[in-house]
Amino acid sequence: MNVYVQTPLGNSEKEYFTSKLPDSVQAVFESDLSESTRRENVEKADIIFGNVPAEWLENAKNLRWVQLHSVGFDKYQDLKTKATLTNMKGFYAQPCAETAVGGILAFYRKMDVFGILRSQNKWVGQSMRCEMSLLRKKKVLIIGTGSIGQACKKILSGFDCRIDFFGRSSPEARFRTPEELINGIQEFDVIINTLPGTEETRKFVSAEMISRLNGNTVFANVGRGTTVDEEALTHALLNGDIAGAVLDVTQEEPLPEKHPLWDCPNVILSQHSGGGYREEFQDLSDIFLENLDRFLANQPLENIIDPKKGY
Amino acid sequence: MNVYVQTPLGNSEKEYFTSKLPDSVQAVFESDLSESTRRENVEKADIIFGNVPAEWLENAKNLRWVQLHSVGFDKYQDLKTKATLTNMKGFYAQPCAETAVGGILAFYRKMDVFGILRSQNKWVGQSMRCEMSLLRKKKVLIIGTGSIGQACKKILSGFDCRIDFFGRSSPEARFRTPEELINGIQEFDVIINTLPGTEETRKFVSAEMISRLNGNTVFANVGRGTTVDEEALTHALLNGDIAGAVLDVTQEEPLPEKHPLWDCPNVILSQHSGGGYREEFQDLSDIFLENLDRFLANQPLENIIDPKKGY
Repeated sequence: MNVYVQTPLGNSEKEYFTSKLPDSVQAVFESDLSESTRRENVEKADIIFGNVPAEWLENAKNLRWVQLHSVGFDKYQDLKTKATLTNMKGFYAQPCAETAVGGILAFYRKMDVFGILRSQNKWVGQSMRCEMSLLRKKKVLIIGTGSIGQACKKILSGFDCRIDFFGRSSPEARFRTPEELINGIQEFDVIINTLPGTEETRKFVSAEMISRLNGNTVFANVGRGTTVDEEALTHALLNGDIAGAVLDVTQEEPLPEKHPLWDCPNVILSQHSGGGYREEFQDLSDIFLENLDRFLANQPLENIIDPKKGY
Repeated sequence: MNVYVQTPLGNSEKEYFTSKLPDSVQAVFESDLSESTRRENVEKADIIFGNVPAEWLENAKNLRWVQLHSVGFDKYQDLKTKATLTNMKGFYAQPCAETAVGGILAFYRKMDVFGILRSQNKWVGQSMRCEMSLLRKKKVLIIGTGSIGQACKKILSGFDCRIDFFGRSSPEARFRTPEELINGIQEFDVIINTLPGTEETRKFVSAEMISRLNGNTVFANVGRGTTVDEEALTHALLNGDIAGAVLDVTQEEPLPEKHPLWDCPNVILSQHSGGGYREEFQDLSDIFLENLDRFLANQPLENIIDPKKGY
């Protein structure tokens, strides 16, 4: 049986991966192939580990299973295939939550500014103190009740924050509709957006919602850039209508060189690194390998998705 | 009765302070006095709120009470006075803990680096991911079992960290002597030093201790710069013997312009801002005013210190 590995494993990770494969399975790593032979190898594969272009999958006659290495799968929405698709549900929750809360805490304790000052050998000392804030007991709104939101909630418990959720159907959510949220959003010190990128969530954080935020609010986005009215947000940031933002995602990535967000001193741009950490690819491999055991034993796979749903 | 306020209150804070004073007490604010008249006003005061030079206190004949606005009081160690001294015990615990944990999280999630990159309009994106770490489940050593250490422990509970303490006499401490710590220190991912600056703690974090740290260790200092062998630490950082450091305090402050720590890319220097936050002086005023109520009612004051002890 052939597995085509698109997931960009390093050399030691490839070795690890190969050593764990059952004898009945042969791996082909995309990074070992010339560009021109990749598509034909995908079309021969029984199993794919990684996120290959959706159109390459249509002619993969033997394909039985695709394990994406992402949580999102909006690019596979129109895919016609008999293969089973699985994703990495929940995998990036903790790293994204650490980036969200870590980014807010960095903003409150000026760690990004101290980074710039270190690079300039510049001491400002005490004068920074009156610009700092504490996360303790802040009122936090988490948009989305999924795994990232839950991981944020857990971390924030150590700061005694008061936490409310927005979610369309979760019993945990205080706000269920955009209208409810627009009416309640002005009370929050911190807002963490975790929404995935779908047609339904496009500009969910709307210009009207942003106009209701109070001047002390810090807005964090570890969902998708498309879920926010970025023009309205940028305007609010430049105008001082809100205190700041931690943006792991933006509408366009890489952020264009002339984009006004680069020049907002009250913004931390974490450049879509939110899910990352050193052992990321080894841990992803382990999840694939565990699902492979199930696959070979004809047991139901973990995290099966319906591509049409888009999230 | 006269209170001399050395604590640097802003205008709105002065107004607040004055509005809360009982009729029997008159406040003189140092910032309203010319430099030449300050000492004579201190020498007339019944009560002092703030940290005036120790030698000014010796001739203050009416002085009955000094409320310091700091926790540390090593500068008053040789003071001869009949007045009662009180400090701000515990006041800076939460801000310092948020700077310690926030700094470590910023280091793990590269928030200082993203600050520098934003200031340069520079997108690096995905390539940063493999350099990032997670705080979840890390093994953390907290040096010192006082209020800062306890606040750190509470925050770290949200990350499921395993926490051990060093403390000479606390039952909570796993390590009680420097020798015990030298033998056990290599297992920790994160070390948070909270020790105060006394003769006893000088270079407590010694060159030998630093040489035992493992290559993944992040060292944070929110105690005093004198408690660490800074030369050994700087060498370990430049040499890559440890992963990084978050230093709120250094031996010399301001850090001299040519100091090698400025050029360590794996160091966050938070410039002794750890205790600060926007409402700091209003909250300090409230603590003074509550103690003033006790003073006027002849009740025992909170946080009485023995200057000879030095911490």
